[in-house]
Amino acid sequence: MRIAIDAMGGDYAPGEIIAGALEAKDLLGSQDELVMVGNEATIRSHLQALKAGPDTFRIIHAPEVIGMDESPVDALRKKPKSSIAIMTRLASHKQVDAVLSAGNTGACVAGSQLRMRTLEGVVRPGIAVVLPTYHGPVTMCDVGANIACKPIHLYQYAVMAGAYSNLMLGIANPRVGIMNIGEEEAKGTDLIKKTRAMIKSDPNVNFVGNIEGRDIFQGKADVVICEGFVGNVVLKLTEGAVGMLFQVIREELMQRNKLLAFWFKSVVKKIYKKYDYHEYGGALLLGVDGTSVICHGSSKARTIKNAILACKTFSEKKINEHIVQALAKSTVNTNGD
Amino acid sequence: MRIAIDAMGGDYAPGEIIAGALEAKDLLGSQDELVMVGNEATIRSHLQALKAGPDTFRIIHAPEVIGMDESPVDALRKKPKSSIAIMTRLASHKQVDAVLSAGNTGACVAGSQLRMRTLEGVVRPGIAVVLPTYHGPVTMCDVGANIACKPIHLYQYAVMAGAYSNLMLGIANPRVGIMNIGEEEAKGTDLIKKTRAMIKSDPNVNFVGNIEGRDIFQGKADVVICEGFVGNVVLKLTEGAVGMLFQVIREELMQRNKLLAFWFKSVVKKIYKKYDYHEYGGALLLGVDGTSVICHGSSKARTIKNAILACKTFSEKKINEHIVQALAKSTVNTNGD
Repeated sequence: MRIAIDAMGGDYAPGEIIAGALEAKDLLGSQDELVMVGNEATIRSHLQALKAGPDTFRIIHAPEVIGMDESPVDALRKKPKSSIAIMTRLASHKQVDAVLSAGNTGACVAGSQLRMRTLEGVVRPGIAVVLPTYHGPVTMCDVGANIACKPIHLYQYAVMAGAYSNLMLGIANPRVGIMNIGEEEAKGTDLIKKTRAMIKSDPNVNFVGNIEGRDIFQGKADVVICEGFVGNVVLKLTEGAVGMLFQVIREELMQRNKLLAFWFKSVVKKIYKKYDYHEYGGALLLGVDGTSVICHGSSKARTIKNAILACKTFSEKKINEHIVQALAKSTVNTNGD
Repeated sequence: MRIAIDAMGGDYAPGEIIAGALEAKDLLGSQDELVMVGNEATIRSHLQALKAGPDTFRIIHAPEVIGMDESPVDALRKKPKSSIAIMTRLASHKQVDAVLSAGNTGACVAGSQLRMRTLEGVVRPGIAVVLPTYHGPVTMCDVGANIACKPIHLYQYAVMAGAYSNLMLGIANPRVGIMNIGEEEAKGTDLIKKTRAMIKSDPNVNFVGNIEGRDIFQGKADVVICEGFVGNVVLKLTEGAVGMLFQVIREELMQRNKLLAFWFKSVVKKIYKKYDYHEYGGALLLGVDGTSVICHGSSKARTIKNAILACKTFSEKKINEHIVQALAKSTVNTNGD
């Protein structure tokens, strides 16, 4: 398998990206190839600093970089020689099988969508993230690819994320819920109501109805679908809330007993390890023809390593075939929105 | 001050509602009157059970109840004798100064908006909630009154919640942020972009730009504005995430040392007390002509007591005058959306 990696994307690029790729390389088979896309001189100097040989990776020079703050579609047009533009072009020409980036999410999504094209039947791709919870992993889609959702998009997220949950997490007949502001059927926006009706019309989706913010962590659904805006807020808020709570607990413990506060650190560490969604290694952009994995902007080497290994698993398990099969069974007309 | 209380609204109504009102009564002045609105026989039997005299409260009989799952506007029309309909009608006739309910939020909002009318210049009321964070209280608006926001609504939430933060929390020149999916200016939906432009055009708002999910807890803004859908998800998600984390910590501690797990309970209790938004006592519906306070559906006596006392504070501090003054200074035309 040939995996293209955006050496220039992310808060800790290129150092942590290259370090993560080096870790992954040791775990991949000899038939796998990692392709570093980015500024060649920079990549070479980092490889040297990390004491890796100059031929460790195939390097494809990309003289331009899309910044985190650039408007995705504009940036792709203006910077055809950026790592993201080159990577997705390589994928579109089937010169690589997967692309991976911790850079500008919007540009990755737009590049993957425009260049790699969508799978048969897919209207709009969506990013799926696995949130580890006490009651098991919850697959959430979309978390930021699509902030102008139509009912058909959300409906397809239900089908695609359901297929993901089933194949990748081994959950039989995953329960699918829609993020809403109340448990009651009458609640929600027009978008939510139309989506609900669409999902309910498909007997292949194990639909459990509305999921409120607090329900995500209470094991009420295996898959939660929502607009990209809401999903993105949910993801970042969860990080923020957990971070704040640990800080508050630590402070409280410090006031009571410094030794206990110190000891609590190991508890926090263990919990972070157990519930760390970075372990799942990047988020798959569901619905593109190929493998496009999007990593958190703050990804360090470990996350990149896991994301690279995830690319391989997505491919080996044939997630895209599974998605296409699930959509083929769909009883909903894709023209309906 | 005359405060009407929806005896029938909420998961623990009427028992906890009446118990909370009894607690509040002891703390209010003799010139204050609590008016219980609900099924008279039920209220009387609860008063008896709580060993309170039959004349403890003025009781106004409401033979109908709006359920949590009813569509707000339909329910108000079909049930003119429900506690919420009667309460808001009393307020519209200036027979009470404030209304308070832990019942159907949508019906409370619709009733308050339709009957009590909006303050001068206000286009759409919004619910403001105070989230206690490590870096201080954050006022969030809207958290569920308005799920079809226009830029002018969000702009006015910025002004009104800013006035709230200033007057009620004593924050001078509060920093106002808008909930978005990235820090960068180019990010967000059309609604967000138009709202940003509107807020930036008003020199009276101390605008700090985009706030991401994780930033809420990091002291980047004193006021965060968002659509009701997003705000509602944020609120409930925070509850859910905190609840799950405490459960996970407890479990981890139990496996290590049962005594420590037991001792940790007191830490959790203290943190809950310090960061419990129920302490703030209900959420004010900003922008209605009068005082309408909305409580969490799961409110128990303590929350109801605090919410009743908050009604009094809102009135004493003249929050509505403060809001009207802030809006009067607005440089934005209310017709613009």
